[in-house]
Amino acid sequence: MAKILLKNGEVLGADGRVSKADIAITDTVITTVGAVEPSWSADRTVDCSNKLILPGFVNTHTHAAMTLFRSYADDMALMDWLQTKIWPAEANLTGEDVYWGTLLAIAEMLKTGTTTFADMYFFMNDVAEAVAQSGIRAVLARGMAGVAPTAGQALVESEEFYRSWHGGADGRITVMLGPHAPYTCPPEYLKKVVALAQLLGAEIHIHLSETLGEVDECRKNHGKSPIELMNDLGLFEHGVLAAHCVHVSAADIAIMAEKGVRVAHNPGSNMKLASGVAPLPQMLAAGICVGLGTDGTASNNNLDMLEELRLSALLHKVNTLDPLVIPAAKAVELATASGAAAVGLGRVTGQLAPGYKADIAILSMDATHWYPRHDRLSLLTYAASAADVDTVLVDGKILLDNRKLTTIDEQQLKYEVQKRGMRLVNRE
Amino acid sequence: MAKILLKNGEVLGADGRVSKADIAITDTVITTVGAVEPSWSADRTVDCSNKLILPGFVNTHTHAAMTLFRSYADDMALMDWLQTKIWPAEANLTGEDVYWGTLLAIAEMLKTGTTTFADMYFFMNDVAEAVAQSGIRAVLARGMAGVAPTAGQALVESEEFYRSWHGGADGRITVMLGPHAPYTCPPEYLKKVVALAQLLGAEIHIHLSETLGEVDECRKNHGKSPIELMNDLGLFEHGVLAAHCVHVSAADIAIMAEKGVRVAHNPGSNMKLASGVAPLPQMLAAGICVGLGTDGTASNNNLDMLEELRLSALLHKVNTLDPLVIPAAKAVELATASGAAAVGLGRVTGQLAPGYKADIAILSMDATHWYPRHDRLSLLTYAASAADVDTVLVDGKILLDNRKLTTIDEQQLKYEVQKRGMRLVNRE
Repeated sequence: MAKILLKNGEVLGADGRVSKADIAITDTVITTVGAVEPSWSADRTVDCSNKLILPGFVNTHTHAAMTLFRSYADDMALMDWLQTKIWPAEANLTGEDVYWGTLLAIAEMLKTGTTTFADMYFFMNDVAEAVAQSGIRAVLARGMAGVAPTAGQALVESEEFYRSWHGGADGRITVMLGPHAPYTCPPEYLKKVVALAQLLGAEIHIHLSETLGEVDECRKNHGKSPIELMNDLGLFEHGVLAAHCVHVSAADIAIMAEKGVRVAHNPGSNMKLASGVAPLPQMLAAGICVGLGTDGTASNNNLDMLEELRLSALLHKVNTLDPLVIPAAKAVELATASGAAAVGLGRVTGQLAPGYKADIAILSMDATHWYPRHDRLSLLTYAASAADVDTVLVDGKILLDNRKLTTIDEQQLKYEVQKRGMRLVNRE
Repeated sequence: MAKILLKNGEVLGADGRVSKADIAITDTVITTVGAVEPSWSADRTVDCSNKLILPGFVNTHTHAAMTLFRSYADDMALMDWLQTKIWPAEANLTGEDVYWGTLLAIAEMLKTGTTTFADMYFFMNDVAEAVAQSGIRAVLARGMAGVAPTAGQALVESEEFYRSWHGGADGRITVMLGPHAPYTCPPEYLKKVVALAQLLGAEIHIHLSETLGEVDECRKNHGKSPIELMNDLGLFEHGVLAAHCVHVSAADIAIMAEKGVRVAHNPGSNMKLASGVAPLPQMLAAGICVGLGTDGTASNNNLDMLEELRLSALLHKVNTLDPLVIPAAKAVELATASGAAAVGLGRVTGQLAPGYKADIAILSMDATHWYPRHDRLSLLTYAASAADVDTVLVDGKILLDNRKLTTIDEQQLKYEVQKRGMRLVNRE
């Protein structure tokens, strides 16, 4: 069993405080945080002097392969963007494109300290291959649109994908079911999804109440909010990760809290697409589990979780006109432990404590923006750069070593995604 | 005369478009953008393959030496923060502290692509020394509070500072007068400032309408808004850089447009301090010149202008619920050409065109977040990191060379600011 020792670092502990500590890792798991016996001999010792050691970030909502459309179409209205740009380009996608696009996303996530991501897309076997080969942890869902010609096929594929990959890649892959949203999945279809979830024991990843328009339409068509509709359909009985939840009422929040709905909050995407500001303080006050996500890079346009962490701290202050809202430590918790809980891995990852998987981001504090050093979590939240991420471990393996990817050929990756990105938009 | 050639780069031209071009620099000035004669022999040629060449960013509002208080006190209400933390710590400042704090700010600004900054603080001779030695460009103002015991002295010092340093450091320093704000400078005091501005031919840098509370108080005390009050006092007759302008009415905006008031918009600070959202789209629609600023690092907490550029694009989209507001090219313009105009240097810096000073930021496009490459300005605005900044020139001198500062000893700087930062808050 491989043994790794992280020595002399400043560690964000499970109590939310930063203190000097060593970390011992045996195989995939953290075995000690604190004083490691001098007799404990590691296969590799990483000197973490002047470095901050964090749980790896958990990106609770993205569409990884959409990296291929990064910067292709921005500053547009949603339907114009989808109809004239994204959907025509997506129609050109092959499984191989999705593999490379996902690998680009994984490369960027590892370089910015993310160790787990929750994905919803298609060609999911190719996504899973990229996850398996790269070594990252992921929660994968095949997106299903009940209004599409592929509606039936998507259900079949989802079941096959669950049976093939749930618990796969040495346990690094979890599979959820991914009904896209209430406005693309009619009630009869969602009932089939719920039945499949029950059959498999699978959880569900879905977009809920992202825009005001979809909430208004739902009320018009069904006489209730999307949250109320999902609750009535039994969707919340099996564990749900709900992306966005921007336009949720007090009544919706009460239902979500009662049913244990977990939320992926995407401040960057909600700002860029002008969706609105989610009631994060109210959701937290109600006891709802909330993690942070980037959404896809076509609507962000990066996968930098430190940026989302900062935006969550800044956006809700100005939105509530209260500078005390979402303080630094809370923002960090949202991006790590709460994010892990949101994707159903709260006992697996997101904390630096014995028994947890060794999913770890090590940041250099050498850059000038880390000086002077009054408060580490404040520096992390309000001053640091994701480029400070130096070394990253997932499942006890070093996947980013001194800023170099160990499992991905970066030159080949750039060549492939550039070529494929141009082809998809007919600019070869 | 030194001759520098930037070769094979992708250049953001004065027309707002990115294209392949070389840049020739003779002494302090850009002499060619485009095809440089092969016979033109440079003293140094910088290969800019796979690099994006931008005008250096202009940070239109900061308090540079407050780097010393970075992360000392965050997530607090404004008056609590000032009274229990910032003012007691500032009372311990010496001129030497301000020199080192400013130098730390300059180091960080150069590393993130900023070539000009507008500052308001005290011990301004020490600030000017740091500017002179480092080689950056700056617009400096001695902060004056009419309600403070130092009110009279501040006027005398401001005049002395103007006479000593305006046009100093080979023309890299411009001096403005810096009355802090209407709520700290009563009308009688502001009249003296206006008279001094007229005497010297100096422009004015002032905080205006940052919080709702100060606007309400001004209306109560004077029966008019801060903008109306300043207009009545003649403050807008001599060229004004107004920081914040968060709570300005349509009537205020009309006055500002008519009087040519230039605005420093600080989205990060306004979000973190929960001041509110400035009506940026309305100010731009009225034809007001707006640049971007970071404000001091005690309320940001970094000096990363790429972050402000991104925040300006994101915040106003979600605030107006219009995804078309502040598109990428506009955000870049705010951070460069418009910023230069806002600080009164619109014919000097902020554009890559012959005759302009060679104030230039060169960004590597090697990182994975620059792939695939559908649109450079979109990638810059929504995906890039300030850590991509590779090389920076100010006034034709290379001040950041392959990420290394050429005029600042970074190790000594870190030692000094860490020691001083701890002393100032009594944590030695």
